[in-house]
Amino acid sequence: MNRVLFNFDREVLDQIHNYSLELLNETGIRFPNREALEIFKRHGLKTDGKMVFFKQKDIEKSLETVPKTFKLHARNEDNSFVIGDDSYRMAPGYGPPFIIEKSGEMRHAVLDDTKKFCKLVQTSKALDFNSSIVAQPNDVPAETAHLDMLLSTMLLTDKPLMGSTSSKSCARDSLEMAEMVWGKIDKPVMINLVDSLSPLQYAQEMVDALLVYAKAKQPLIIHSSCSLGTSGPITIAGSLVLSNACTLAGICLTQLVNPGTPIVYGLGGSPTDMRTGGYINASPEDAKHTAIVAALGRYYHIPCRSQGALTESFGLDYQAGMESSMMLTTAALSGVHVSLHACGTYGSMLAMSFEKFLADEDLCRVIKTLMKPVELSEDAFAMDLIKKLGTSGAYLLESHTAKRCRSEFFIPDLNIRTIHSKWLKMEHRQMDQRASQLLEKRLSAYEKPDIDPSIEKDLIRYVENKKQ
Amino acid sequence: MNRVLFNFDREVLDQIHNYSLELLNETGIRFPNREALEIFKRHGLKTDGKMVFFKQKDIEKSLETVPKTFKLHARNEDNSFVIGDDSYRMAPGYGPPFIIEKSGEMRHAVLDDTKKFCKLVQTSKALDFNSSIVAQPNDVPAETAHLDMLLSTMLLTDKPLMGSTSSKSCARDSLEMAEMVWGKIDKPVMINLVDSLSPLQYAQEMVDALLVYAKAKQPLIIHSSCSLGTSGPITIAGSLVLSNACTLAGICLTQLVNPGTPIVYGLGGSPTDMRTGGYINASPEDAKHTAIVAALGRYYHIPCRSQGALTESFGLDYQAGMESSMMLTTAALSGVHVSLHACGTYGSMLAMSFEKFLADEDLCRVIKTLMKPVELSEDAFAMDLIKKLGTSGAYLLESHTAKRCRSEFFIPDLNIRTIHSKWLKMEHRQMDQRASQLLEKRLSAYEKPDIDPSIEKDLIRYVENKKQ
Repeated sequence: MNRVLFNFDREVLDQIHNYSLELLNETGIRFPNREALEIFKRHGLKTDGKMVFFKQKDIEKSLETVPKTFKLHARNEDNSFVIGDDSYRMAPGYGPPFIIEKSGEMRHAVLDDTKKFCKLVQTSKALDFNSSIVAQPNDVPAETAHLDMLLSTMLLTDKPLMGSTSSKSCARDSLEMAEMVWGKIDKPVMINLVDSLSPLQYAQEMVDALLVYAKAKQPLIIHSSCSLGTSGPITIAGSLVLSNACTLAGICLTQLVNPGTPIVYGLGGSPTDMRTGGYINASPEDAKHTAIVAALGRYYHIPCRSQGALTESFGLDYQAGMESSMMLTTAALSGVHVSLHACGTYGSMLAMSFEKFLADEDLCRVIKTLMKPVELSEDAFAMDLIKKLGTSGAYLLESHTAKRCRSEFFIPDLNIRTIHSKWLKMEHRQMDQRASQLLEKRLSAYEKPDIDPSIEKDLIRYVENKKQ
Repeated sequence: MNRVLFNFDREVLDQIHNYSLELLNETGIRFPNREALEIFKRHGLKTDGKMVFFKQKDIEKSLETVPKTFKLHARNEDNSFVIGDDSYRMAPGYGPPFIIEKSGEMRHAVLDDTKKFCKLVQTSKALDFNSSIVAQPNDVPAETAHLDMLLSTMLLTDKPLMGSTSSKSCARDSLEMAEMVWGKIDKPVMINLVDSLSPLQYAQEMVDALLVYAKAKQPLIIHSSCSLGTSGPITIAGSLVLSNACTLAGICLTQLVNPGTPIVYGLGGSPTDMRTGGYINASPEDAKHTAIVAALGRYYHIPCRSQGALTESFGLDYQAGMESSMMLTTAALSGVHVSLHACGTYGSMLAMSFEKFLADEDLCRVIKTLMKPVELSEDAFAMDLIKKLGTSGAYLLESHTAKRCRSEFFIPDLNIRTIHSKWLKMEHRQMDQRASQLLEKRLSAYEKPDIDPSIEKDLIRYVENKKQ
């Protein structure tokens, strides 16, 4: 199967683009960041205080230098991958400060949780890279937590990384640690998430981080979203225009700083719960944004990003599976290239769960299997076999079946495939019980990937020094 | 959002079509049915015993007379709908003889279950029509169970119907009962599922039923599928060719009998569990068939059908939600027009569950919301509002938000949207508990739709007479 294309009419995408340009030109985007404002002015863009106004040519020129695809390198080159091709790349939860236990109870995440998640990412058949905040630990100082998390990822995994974008110094620390691993950074080795603020602005610290990474030509996910009806219009069309304008402004800045900086285009939108003012994840409105962000990414010839296996649920129930699957299937079939939050999150990204992480891995693998092109070889069409067996088929006995039977089908790790009578007697009929078993097995079988001992020592010393 | 198109290359679809024609011409399809064989012979098709051989022109001529869309009429015209337009039409489980209770225990279905499901279908915001065997009752004679089920559907719902295809007399009974409701049947009032047998044949009784309905020009779903590796090749490409040939042969027969008979094109394929020989539902391999059946339906300009919210699970857990959602999201985004099994099934369609039915309804409504086109009016783009609020957005206070806030977003019936502390204290934290509550509410609020008392009497008398 090939990836699919939503048939959003070109003229609808033109309309969203043109309205976005109108906002960029007339209303402007707020960049409360002196360095960014100077860069914009230097390139002839109009500013008024902290507001920056973009002409069509500014945006279009910046889009020209964004790469259509790029390769993100891991310290183990076998784990490097391209973003922007037919593949769908996945990272686990990003940002949750809590852990929800099997009991349903919630507690603060600690560094040991972060490390366990790193081990799961490393051994995951589903996930391609780690997020920079797979769980925000509460038992280390907040100012240096990014160092602990990055060190854990660097030592416990050899898959690609995300850097911290919390502030200028966080970004610089991340780059310095990357330099210890790679020496000179002359290729993308760290992908970094920049979220704008709705409506129509960026936080000063995020812009600082954007500038650090753009100068180093490291890939940036530029993502804008709003809560429909509170921080943005209640309508999807309005939300699209608002967020697209903001994302385009961010992309423009990256290309002014360093043309050719790799970008992942991001845009989202979640309904506001009108009873509480909170935002609702994993709604069909979210999923619509996911489909459209892929169409806009193709429109701009930029790889795109969507949300992952989100849910409003707090347990491993039908709702959690249904919402996570709806979000991820829509992303996959719409042509999304990258998803954060693909494994482990509960309750509007509030908390991580080890059990949900493992359940989501089955989902991610299902989705990746679904996306694989159908084999169309002569052997796969099996015309001679079909003709030979005619209406008296006993395919099970054929060597065509025997040769392929171990590899042809997807096999889940956690989902069951059994008959009812056996299920009734299963010791661990509940999915979270099976997940706990699997978690233990995964963690105990974990092996730390090789790393040059001197690099490891340097990294540990760097973090220790910074923490003093 | 518009429906999506899988970008299967035209040449891949041509290849599947051409290989299917090769099988139809060289290997043939087995029709163990004298009347069908005579019809084929009369139209100049070559036969050999019970095997029928189709030339390209036979197939292509028959495809020409199949309507691109058709309207299926309900006895309440408000519930009539078109099949083959942009909509996705859904019916509940088809065929399960068992009920799985909340406890996980399984029991035989009884007529009272069938009636309860009819009431749920009637009050469903998600389902468009009832299946003819929403649950196969064990407490009425098997020979006349189709009458009890159809009577229940006709009296307890006023949505469109399916007729029985178990045998010639079942089909005739179904039509006679439909005639009592509609008088002369001069339009599609009953849609009917014909399953072929894999490989490359039809059961005699199914062909009998096909002939009865085709003569009355009632819509037929012609569906072929195989278990990959047992009743068909282990490969998806092989399965597609095998099943497509069989479905095309069935379609050809309908159009020879009565050109213009409305058809829904169906094709599926499920992996064989190599440990047990059973077939596995809701796999990514199933979902791939779903995507391709939609592409083939478009290729032939015939509305198409896929499986629904299938799962291998036996309870309302993450797996059930994940698998059901993956199947239904793929169908929706691929452009499927009709799904049976959209609500209520567990364990490879073995059993129905009232709780799963209600959970699936939320899923079906999510999917239908996801598919709704994005509103692109000037009011939806809200450019004036976005410009007015600029970076100091307080959208919640705006009349644009107030006017739309009750109708803009999807609201689930069973899925939760709450904060963790409230969830922890919820009386019914388990989804199946909430489903039981909702079930009671739905059944107690149910109102029987109006029907002409003399028609009702006739229908009841007809069934009573037949049962004597």
